[in-house]
Amino acid sequence: MIDPGATLATIRERRPLVHNITNYVVMNETANAILALGALPVMAHAKNEVQEMVGLAGALVLNIGTLDEDWVEAMLLAGAAANERGIPVVLDPVGAGATAYRTSTAKRILEVVDVTVLRGNAGEIGTLVGAAAEVRGVESIDSGGDAAALAREAGKTLGVVASVTGPVDHVSDGKRVLAISNGHPLLASITGTGCMSTALTGCFLAGKADPLEAAAEALVALGVAGEDAAEGAKGPGSFHVALYDALAGLDPADLTSRSKVSEG
Amino acid sequence: MIDPGATLATIRERRPLVHNITNYVVMNETANAILALGALPVMAHAKNEVQEMVGLAGALVLNIGTLDEDWVEAMLLAGAAANERGIPVVLDPVGAGATAYRTSTAKRILEVVDVTVLRGNAGEIGTLVGAAAEVRGVESIDSGGDAAALAREAGKTLGVVASVTGPVDHVSDGKRVLAISNGHPLLASITGTGCMSTALTGCFLAGKADPLEAAAEALVALGVAGEDAAEGAKGPGSFHVALYDALAGLDPADLTSRSKVSEG
Amino acid sequence: MIDPGATLATIRERRPLVHNITNYVVMNETANAILALGALPVMAHAKNEVQEMVGLAGALVLNIGTLDEDWVEAMLLAGAAANERGIPVVLDPVGAGATAYRTSTAKRILEVVDVTVLRGNAGEIGTLVGAAAEVRGVESIDSGGDAAALAREAGKTLGVVASVTGPVDHVSDGKRVLAISNGHPLLASITGTGCMSTALTGCFLAGKADPLEAAAEALVALGVAGEDAAEGAKGPGSFHVALYDALAGLDPADLTSRSKVSEG
Repeated sequence: MIDPGATLATIRERRPLVHNITNYVVMNETANAILALGALPVMAHAKNEVQEMVGLAGALVLNIGTLDEDWVEAMLLAGAAANERGIPVVLDPVGAGATAYRTSTAKRILEVVDVTVLRGNAGEIGTLVGAAAEVRGVESIDSGGDAAALAREAGKTLGVVASVTGPVDHVSDGKRVLAISNGHPLLASITGTGCMSTALTGCFLAGKADPLEAAAEALVALGVAGEDAAEGAKGPGSFHVALYDALAGLDPADLTSRSKVSEG
Repeated sequence: MIDPGATLATIRERRPLVHNITNYVVMNETANAILALGALPVMAHAKNEVQEMVGLAGALVLNIGTLDEDWVEAMLLAGAAANERGIPVVLDPVGAGATAYRTSTAKRILEVVDVTVLRGNAGEIGTLVGAAAEVRGVESIDSGGDAAALAREAGKTLGVVASVTGPVDHVSDGKRVLAISNGHPLLASITGTGCMSTALTGCFLAGKADPLEAAAEALVALGVAGEDAAEGAKGPGSFHVALYDALAGLDPADLTSRSKVSEG
Repeated sequence: MIDPGATLATIRERRPLVHNITNYVVMNETANAILALGALPVMAHAKNEVQEMVGLAGALVLNIGTLDEDWVEAMLLAGAAANERGIPVVLDPVGAGATAYRTSTAKRILEVVDVTVLRGNAGEIGTLVGAAAEVRGVESIDSGGDAAALAREAGKTLGVVASVTGPVDHVSDGKRVLAISNGHPLLASITGTGCMSTALTGCFLAGKADPLEAAAEALVALGVAGEDAAEGAKGPGSFHVALYDALAGLDPADLTSRSKVSEG
């Protein structure tokens, strides 16, 4: 059952550690989003410590936004350690489709690591399932395609829960598809909200066993926080600040009733 | 003709990708500034992908704020690829003059890469033309010299458009000098506004063919946004937030009439 | 004499350069905190330049929050250069106790470099003196132990001024213990305020010769700024923004009278 309020309450009670190997651009932002939601973030990328660190974590978040070889190796090591211990793994294939290096790295991680949830925009996920996709750098641009079908296809062919975010988000395990309509256009006005949704997916995976529902609930949480933050925002700067206030202020008692999730 | 409003309208219509190889301190800030203005930022530094990434871009921004050898090599590769394809390149020689490594790296990039615009403070640019210059770390401190003459000298001897920012900014191709008086003292109260002016220069180069005028217009845009953001700001934190709101709120219809540009 | 107002006035007059080799997550935040207080930040980690850069600085800040081998070597080089020149060094052993790599790196730096002030939470400092300590990643969680005794023990056995932050902070050189009660719970709601206290400790060391008192005064300054920022804050986002305004707005004339410092 989709019940983000209950999962949020669990996260805030347990305060799971969420281990991130992520990009330089959003490290501060995703750490603060995780902390505002109620979990504990840690950023650690040294090959000397990622296997130990992930052992302490409730979820592992891999994000290739500013990748290079050492970081990719650390991701593979951490991913393997997470898999051994049954710790869920989220992958954000930032910019897959923009360069061959990003595409091949995302595919390599998907081959080597048992990824629980793959969270990206339509262009990135489309690239990884071999669909025609327009990707211009790393920011999401409207693809105009059938996002529900894309999520289902990605879930099926890649053996993951695919979480395709956009104006409406779609999450699928290859069979069931959930559409999430929470959110606000201002979320696209700042960089890193996609990465934030990936990080929050890690939090929800640490709070709920069902990965399809956890992935959908994370998007509800960010979407509702975005709706709250948009009230009174004068532009991307003030919206960005209000987003952390809104994440911290999410109320488990009404989050579930504010969810806009439908079987897609 | 100096017409930042028209160029801004072009940028927002085209949404050019601006490829940044920049420092860790300001990555989030410059990405958000580029996005707030209306272009698409991407941060990518892997030697495996910079040549491909820059091929998608309308401009390349090189910034040595937290340099090391791998990053410098990536800058040289990306710069050469940009030159081959006629993509404009902006260089920000952060901290040139503070250490020999920064000075020599900035000089090396200027030698190897055909830099379109060199954007720095008086101390940094002074160092690169061999003038006596006071540099204390990377923050701008008042140099007291003749900035117009410095810009002209740098433009002439380095074969670039020199963009020397300070209380009044001066831009020169070695012949013509433009002085830009837009701005607000609070811009110096947060780190990274120099880097932001460099990143916005990249956006304007992607929107206008004349590099001297594009460089001047970028400084007008940031300056006007700074003027707007200062209203109601209580200090550097609230100013910083309001700056993104102001960049997103810049109105192409009155930006040109708000320009304070004179032939210097 | 504990007189943070006088030291703050000195810092703002001298504008010392504070050289940071720190983690990716907080680079922008600590740079802006240093700048808001009134000193000049520089982030530089290249082995090619750290020895030269630290020679220009009034203090060196080492922070292992996102360490890897190259960065650790740069820290050791910079630390040795600082020691040769009598420049004070602050070490923040972020996450010591969370992984063996972090613990051993913190110990290695303490062995090789003459550290002036060691600033951490109770779990991190407890780990370094061999006490039982709970560390979950890098965020501070209540340890419940006797923080005054821990600070004294760390000061004595490690030969440093130990600065143990928490709901009440304790600073000790192994003999004298100072307890600082300034601050606000919202300081724990955003990531990087621990790192900020370390960075501000660097500023105060550059402004006052007595390291025990300088360390205590830095915590007073951040604590008072936190008290001011909490007024009107709606959550972690707006508090974060207000914190920079508050640091810039600290008044040397009343900072000392607002200090809550007692011999502990």
